[in-house]
Amino acid sequence: MTELFREVDNCVTAPQGFRAGTVACGIKSDASSKDLAILASYVPCVTAGTFTTSGTAAAPVLLCQERLKDGRTQAIIVNSGNANCATGDPGLLNAYCMTEFVATHLHLENELVLCSSTGIIGRQLPIEKIAAGVKQIELSREQGNAFSEAIMTTDTHPKRIALEFELEGRTVRLGGCTKGAGMIYPNMATMLCYLTTDAVLEHEWMQNELRAAVADTFNMISVDGDMSTNDTCLLFANGLAGNTPLNALHPEAETFRKALRHVMEYLAIEMARDGEGATKLMTVLVRGALNKADAVKAARAITLSPIWQCALAGGDPNWGRIVAALGASGCALQADRYDIFIGDVQVTRQGIGTEYEQEQARAAMAGSEVTITIDLHLGEGQATAWGCDLTHGYIDENTLYTR
Amino acid sequence: MTELFREVDNCVTAPQGFRAGTVACGIKSDASSKDLAILASYVPCVTAGTFTTSGTAAAPVLLCQERLKDGRTQAIIVNSGNANCATGDPGLLNAYCMTEFVATHLHLENELVLCSSTGIIGRQLPIEKIAAGVKQIELSREQGNAFSEAIMTTDTHPKRIALEFELEGRTVRLGGCTKGAGMIYPNMATMLCYLTTDAVLEHEWMQNELRAAVADTFNMISVDGDMSTNDTCLLFANGLAGNTPLNALHPEAETFRKALRHVMEYLAIEMARDGEGATKLMTVLVRGALNKADAVKAARAITLSPIWQCALAGGDPNWGRIVAALGASGCALQADRYDIFIGDVQVTRQGIGTEYEQEQARAAMAGSEVTITIDLHLGEGQATAWGCDLTHGYIDENTLYTR
Repeated sequence: MTELFREVDNCVTAPQGFRAGTVACGIKSDASSKDLAILASYVPCVTAGTFTTSGTAAAPVLLCQERLKDGRTQAIIVNSGNANCATGDPGLLNAYCMTEFVATHLHLENELVLCSSTGIIGRQLPIEKIAAGVKQIELSREQGNAFSEAIMTTDTHPKRIALEFELEGRTVRLGGCTKGAGMIYPNMATMLCYLTTDAVLEHEWMQNELRAAVADTFNMISVDGDMSTNDTCLLFANGLAGNTPLNALHPEAETFRKALRHVMEYLAIEMARDGEGATKLMTVLVRGALNKADAVKAARAITLSPIWQCALAGGDPNWGRIVAALGASGCALQADRYDIFIGDVQVTRQGIGTEYEQEQARAAMAGSEVTITIDLHLGEGQATAWGCDLTHGYIDENTLYTR
Repeated sequence: MTELFREVDNCVTAPQGFRAGTVACGIKSDASSKDLAILASYVPCVTAGTFTTSGTAAAPVLLCQERLKDGRTQAIIVNSGNANCATGDPGLLNAYCMTEFVATHLHLENELVLCSSTGIIGRQLPIEKIAAGVKQIELSREQGNAFSEAIMTTDTHPKRIALEFELEGRTVRLGGCTKGAGMIYPNMATMLCYLTTDAVLEHEWMQNELRAAVADTFNMISVDGDMSTNDTCLLFANGLAGNTPLNALHPEAETFRKALRHVMEYLAIEMARDGEGATKLMTVLVRGALNKADAVKAARAITLSPIWQCALAGGDPNWGRIVAALGASGCALQADRYDIFIGDVQVTRQGIGTEYEQEQARAAMAGSEVTITIDLHLGEGQATAWGCDLTHGYIDENTLYTR
């Protein structure tokens, strides 16, 4: 991290004016598991969001998209354990009910409340449990971390971060947390991401910045190539820091952009690292592509190849599988030009295997973080994608999920 | 099978005039494994082919594409254990050498010999072993089955079939065999497929028929979404049956088309069933799509979803994962219209979960063959795709392959 930013605690409640609270209301089968959480600001927020492009998007996604039209919200309620997807009109009604419970509980305008759900698809929400749960939730500044834990499903640990930095001499903060471990191929992934800031942001600029940052971070991770029905990424800016509104012309816009990118990249990488059953984080750098779109195709193709993910799990430098995934990616390439590196070990030069030391290549695959670098030697396009290995753990996690 | 066709033995050597032979020449680490095979016709054949679309296509694919330009060949040599891919100019030279060995051995024109390779990517072929091996190969009419075994890599059993039927009152035969078990997402799959017939076929018609049949069969199977560098499908027609050349106007063209489709669909399904680690064959029928392209997208998306493949492995009717894959597929759909069936059990009606019996749904998932039917209720488009489950076996097969 650059010196511009200091890490601070409490993730989404680190910026001033945000509060959170959680409860175990019985949606998850384990009655002691937190499964309902609220995040709210004292004042309305300018809000930007990006969502799954799935044709079977869940009810809460439809609700968020509707309510984000004027870019102004104040709170969100999130449940884990049930995705409220493939639930038809009753499901949509339940989503609206969830927000109404929060509006009543916190004395907010109903239209300013959003909701998210994550978990099993195809079951109606136990709406009475949620009604009762909301009443028990007490919000406070200290519960950002608890919020990040209540939204988890198969995650092994929470993913959260908050930064503090200066804008116009004022101290501002940006916090964030995500959940997501399987069905991760964002556009978005089965991921929920909540970002909060007390900076003043112009809505259009903020929406553009969020979308661009999602493209380079959350949309560049993959666990299994499965896109979810519930993916949601929201950025709430309550403006309590009182700076001049940030937009493309603001001289310090770049500082906020860097902070946003830092937070989102951190969260994206942590999600890839915590992929279901994952033991290794894979970073794939592609450079020399004809253009950025091609670099993205190539980098994602490597992270998405199950057969390479298995080799990664075994620490087996079977780079032929990288060649196969690269060839299948559809990116422009010349078979006698590309170079491939595993860590620092060059395994392919101009499309042909090098005389590398097998032991060195194995060593480069041995750790918990493995970097693959591909230079296509065709142009200036570059991209980075993150993924993980494919292990028995993934199978075990997903073989018997509904039981 | 319809009564038009009778099954006969010896697959690719069932049609008159075809011979095969095999040898263990030491390409595979297990010295007793057959790893080199030749298939040849007594007379030149009209030949059609389809190949991988990979940007890193292997040397033998390039050779075949070059030599198929005039649609006339007589023999093919195939090695397993080494893909001759990412091997640069030396690899291409080796591919040409392989065909020369065969031409010398069988007294054929060099330009009439093709070659295929399958196995590890990135290592040069042991060309001296191949030179020695070719000399040991004795061809006969009885070795079609041996040929189908020598081309296997991680396949647990050979995939082969031959049909006999009548054309213009003459008896003709069509035989075929394939290999392929992992890295299966054809366009083609890591699959090699050889088809032989003694019927007389017009080249252009035959090429079109082959391409269309590949689209509906081999290109509709998936094990892991990985496309290979070596995929090859060849159809050799030596014309010894002496019928009037088949083309689009021939009154009995449909008989041959049906036989070709039957053989290719059978081989495709057998490959999906024998996916690495697979315990269940999955058949996905999509109907009511806006058009065929959309039906293909939707059907393939279900077979390609690792998270659904895991549920399938566990016999868990977690149909929400089908909804997620369907939504992510990019096919046109209306969230309040689609129906989903697991076997005969309707689990979704108009986009909402039905009140089905969990035990019935489990029973529909319990066997070694599971059929998923999706009706999008939008149009007339239909497609069928085949895949398999994702198990520990796949992981084990692919974690340590090069060791």
